[in-house]
Amino acid sequence: MNYRFIIILLFIVSPARMLRAQEIVPADCPNKTQLEMQKRGYGMFIHFGVNTFDEKEWSDGTIPVDKYRPDSLDCDQWVRVARDAGFRYVLLVTKHHDGFCLWDSRYTTYDVASSPVKTDVVKAVSDACKKYGLQFAIYYSLWDRHEPVYQNADFGEYIDYMSNQLTELLTNYGPVCEVWFDGGWDKKPEEWRLPEIYSLVKRLQPHCAVGVNHTIVLKEGEREFALPDSMIVDNKYTFQYFPGDFRLWDPKIAHKQDKKQYLHDGRSYYLPFEHTLCISKAWNWFQKKALSPVRDLDELEELFYWCTDNDNTLVVNVPPDQTGRIREHEANAVIALGKRLGIKKGEPLPRNGSFLSLQSPAFASSVYENNELLYGAALATDGGMQTRWAAADTTALLTIPLDKDKPFNKIVIFEYCDTQNGEDGFSNYRTNRIQSYRIEIEKNGQWEAVYVSDEPMGDCKVIRFPYPYQTSQIRLNVTKASAPPSVYEFNVIYKE
Amino acid sequence: MNYRFIIILLFIVSPARMLRAQEIVPADCPNKTQLEMQKRGYGMFIHFGVNTFDEKEWSDGTIPVDKYRPDSLDCDQWVRVARDAGFRYVLLVTKHHDGFCLWDSRYTTYDVASSPVKTDVVKAVSDACKKYGLQFAIYYSLWDRHEPVYQNADFGEYIDYMSNQLTELLTNYGPVCEVWFDGGWDKKPEEWRLPEIYSLVKRLQPHCAVGVNHTIVLKEGEREFALPDSMIVDNKYTFQYFPGDFRLWDPKIAHKQDKKQYLHDGRSYYLPFEHTLCISKAWNWFQKKALSPVRDLDELEELFYWCTDNDNTLVVNVPPDQTGRIREHEANAVIALGKRLGIKKGEPLPRNGSFLSLQSPAFASSVYENNELLYGAALATDGGMQTRWAAADTTALLTIPLDKDKPFNKIVIFEYCDTQNGEDGFSNYRTNRIQSYRIEIEKNGQWEAVYVSDEPMGDCKVIRFPYPYQTSQIRLNVTKASAPPSVYEFNVIYKE
Repeated sequence: MNYRFIIILLFIVSPARMLRAQEIVPADCPNKTQLEMQKRGYGMFIHFGVNTFDEKEWSDGTIPVDKYRPDSLDCDQWVRVARDAGFRYVLLVTKHHDGFCLWDSRYTTYDVASSPVKTDVVKAVSDACKKYGLQFAIYYSLWDRHEPVYQNADFGEYIDYMSNQLTELLTNYGPVCEVWFDGGWDKKPEEWRLPEIYSLVKRLQPHCAVGVNHTIVLKEGEREFALPDSMIVDNKYTFQYFPGDFRLWDPKIAHKQDKKQYLHDGRSYYLPFEHTLCISKAWNWFQKKALSPVRDLDELEELFYWCTDNDNTLVVNVPPDQTGRIREHEANAVIALGKRLGIKKGEPLPRNGSFLSLQSPAFASSVYENNELLYGAALATDGGMQTRWAAADTTALLTIPLDKDKPFNKIVIFEYCDTQNGEDGFSNYRTNRIQSYRIEIEKNGQWEAVYVSDEPMGDCKVIRFPYPYQTSQIRLNVTKASAPPSVYEFNVIYKE
Repeated sequence: MNYRFIIILLFIVSPARMLRAQEIVPADCPNKTQLEMQKRGYGMFIHFGVNTFDEKEWSDGTIPVDKYRPDSLDCDQWVRVARDAGFRYVLLVTKHHDGFCLWDSRYTTYDVASSPVKTDVVKAVSDACKKYGLQFAIYYSLWDRHEPVYQNADFGEYIDYMSNQLTELLTNYGPVCEVWFDGGWDKKPEEWRLPEIYSLVKRLQPHCAVGVNHTIVLKEGEREFALPDSMIVDNKYTFQYFPGDFRLWDPKIAHKQDKKQYLHDGRSYYLPFEHTLCISKAWNWFQKKALSPVRDLDELEELFYWCTDNDNTLVVNVPPDQTGRIREHEANAVIALGKRLGIKKGEPLPRNGSFLSLQSPAFASSVYENNELLYGAALATDGGMQTRWAAADTTALLTIPLDKDKPFNKIVIFEYCDTQNGEDGFSNYRTNRIQSYRIEIEKNGQWEAVYVSDEPMGDCKVIRFPYPYQTSQIRLNVTKASAPPSVYEFNVIYKE
């Protein structure tokens, strides 16, 4: 055997080696599965099922199967929209908590095959993904409110049911890049036998990334969830669900300085975070009969950056309606977003600029209930999207010192809004508090307005300047508000 | 004398020929003066004077001269902003109705030279225009509420005063591309002796374009103004003020199909229209102490196109404040507008796309007071910015048939807003009526929403689609309004 022959042999062996399951092992950097996931970065989430036909977000497994009746089902359109929008994968809800299956499952009749419209949606979507060059991912609810064996004394019977269904999903539809497990809260974490399930997935789809919603908890063995905002220290929090390749806490947004090392059994694992957002302003996951406006493109753009800049990923939910098609106004919005971002196939995702105000001290004219801990000014610059500054009055100043040598040309403000829940218990409607405001910079000892508005701030206000400014201090001057103003994040950014 | 010598002589003579005054003569196409004006197209209007220091739009000539006291006067900054914003000329208010002169006039002491800040503003601005490569234009009020000779029995004395001042302005400050006369309403048109004044201007500045506000009337010799909206027929309306090189009707907006032939003494003259707009949302001409938000960039962009597309011109008022500087938030807005439009020096001004709905029939679910003449649906597509459709109910449909073969990718809606006047009697504050609405297109016999909003429409709503649509019908579906909705113009546009 000469030297050349050995080299040829190595090449032949390589593909097989690459297909060996990439299971999670202690590490402080992404493995190949995670790198591929980070490279994808931006996916379209699709919620569709019996809920779509009953104005529900969650249903209890009793909606009759013949309610599922899309009259113009067009899964090809879903994926075409995803491709045109620059999404790199489609994450399909194959089974929600209600147990209804979007494929023809041998193990239940609560599925499309038993419904009036028998199209295997999992097949149609995965085929379209192949056709349009996108990767395919599945969401699968652990919790099942329909399947009778779920209630059996021996929970192993349901684990078998689930394993069988996952085998169908991971065997019959080609490559699956990700499995997103949900509903784990209905049982103790260990009851789900995740090590077995995880191994099953990896055996069938070696490079499939696996995540379970509410992955991380404050203390090992306790069910106190760690919110994404708190995850700014490595090796402090621990897995609730182990093993897994990425973190989930739908629909929370991770901290700007999100950390990625988590403990299990005293060992540290690298885990990126996958964000979930809705295109709908009303935050509905399943489509409703009423048309809902989409979130503002400015807000979507900034959330895109926030969610993907930090080696994390984002899926945006764009749900088909009862006709079985994505609505045109949602399709054109998500496509407009992709064009605005300038996402290009095969290239890294676009990034935001540098954040000059991040973790800067901040000073406010007042703090709600004088509670610095809960509502202090610095919470508007801390990089956390769940923490916020709140004022005590309806006029207020929030002042942030800056490095005078560093130019900025964009301001992004995420205002805390009052929300009203919709009838489904999930959707919500936001109302701005800030009605009139200015952005002012310190110049020669005086405050100079660089932006003046008398319009409600909007869920995410983006102000782009045509040239950069430099100042030692910037402030938000709220001149009118319907309630004491409150701001999640006030970001001063320099973007090329 | 040989042949060569004759040619050389011709070259020597040419510049003198070109400087020969271009007076208005019957024509159906622009003369050189008008062509140059159309080529400029976009100017910055500057209102600054004693009014700036007294919270006034108009004053009566009694504000003491020492009230004029800018503490950081910086005319160079004004013109720098104009240049950065892509303006091609600066139109400076040299004397408003109050009679206060922004230059050191030999003929009055109601001027900057007698004030605490003696800078000759006309000189400073015209010098800066030369420095930054912009053309310089002047506004001069015919009406003078300060100058005592204005009240003399012999009005000729005031005509002399005015001629003397104009001689100063047109002699001492280099080239002046335009003179904008205002306030003619205070006397009978013939009292202003415009043929003399016009000849004076042309003698001193041969290619200076001259216009008098409220140029055109319905009938010769009568003082019934013809609104720009009605000027859609050539040779129907007549000069009130003759001669002149362009039309004015501040601050009205001309019809989309504005015509340019006007009669005087039975002969027809070509006359473009110069539009005037304020950068301020509150429509103030002179700056006030209170900071005012600027008009939305979308609105400014569409108004720019509307006002310049049709061989007409636009000046945007960006007034300095009491410090003597243009405010930073107004400066960055007008510069952002220029960048967004992509105005390039030496190149033709950017243009809007093609209007597919212009003069299309239109159908409404209701018409206010059933008055088709005043509020009929077709007034929303007629191309006129003063005419409008108004509904009778707070929900309403406005339907417009389109040519299905022609794609469109932009919708522009100018909504009629309720306005409240400010204390100065000029400024006004607009409130939208339309609170929630959809844009729907006809597709296979059904209405499909391509845009859904639950936010107040805004003074000018621009919806840009990421790809073109084609349909045989489009409609505005107003689902909620605070009063019966009303729309000046609903434009369906295809823009490359």
